[in-house]
Amino acid sequence: MSKYAMFGKLTAQPGKREELADKMLSSSETLNDMEGCIYYILHAAEDNPDELWITELWENEEAHAASLKNEKVRELIGSCRHLIAGASAVKVRPLGGKGF
Amino acid sequence: MSKYAMFGKLTAQPGKREELADKMLSSSETLNDMEGCIYYILHAAEDNPDELWITELWENEEAHAASLKNEKVRELIGSCRHLIAGASAVKVRPLGGKGF
Repeated sequence: MSKYAMFGKLTAQPGKREELADKMLSSSETLNDMEGCIYYILHAAEDNPDELWITELWENEEAHAASLKNEKVRELIGSCRHLIAGASAVKVRPLGGKGF
Repeated sequence: MSKYAMFGKLTAQPGKREELADKMLSSSETLNDMEGCIYYILHAAEDNPDELWITELWENEEAHAASLKNEKVRELIGSCRHLIAGASAVKVRPLGGKGF
């Protein structure tokens, strides 16, 4: 099976980026236990005070799909929803590189 | 020192994405030897046949800057130039996560 990558931009409600990031980083502890997650890294955009970028790499698409069914992850997504103004994803196919 | 991330979009000359990606993946072997590079991953955009996305994470900004002075990396950049129609970067500050 092929590795699976995604990266997405989350726009926080005005002034809520830090709160959103803190919540999501608590999720990355959940992700540390998640089978098949190679990396999941949260970034703050330097040129927009409300934007976060996430880059993720998974062993395969199924592992990513399974993570979204995980109870802890679902709880987290629910608890973040009111902090999020918008989201968009860049659909990509990982090709290779260091750490791949 | 803080970790350093960047991700960028490269637009290949029409029809040249595969050739550009092949060249860049040969570079990732160079990057495997590069001190301070945590990951460097090349992705093909699914919705545009000419676009590549690169995500990079480094131990610090200095390690990234040093890589650009490396002879092999400079040769590679030079040899790719004719395949590239455009480039843009998203400036980000890595916050944390799995694999961080």
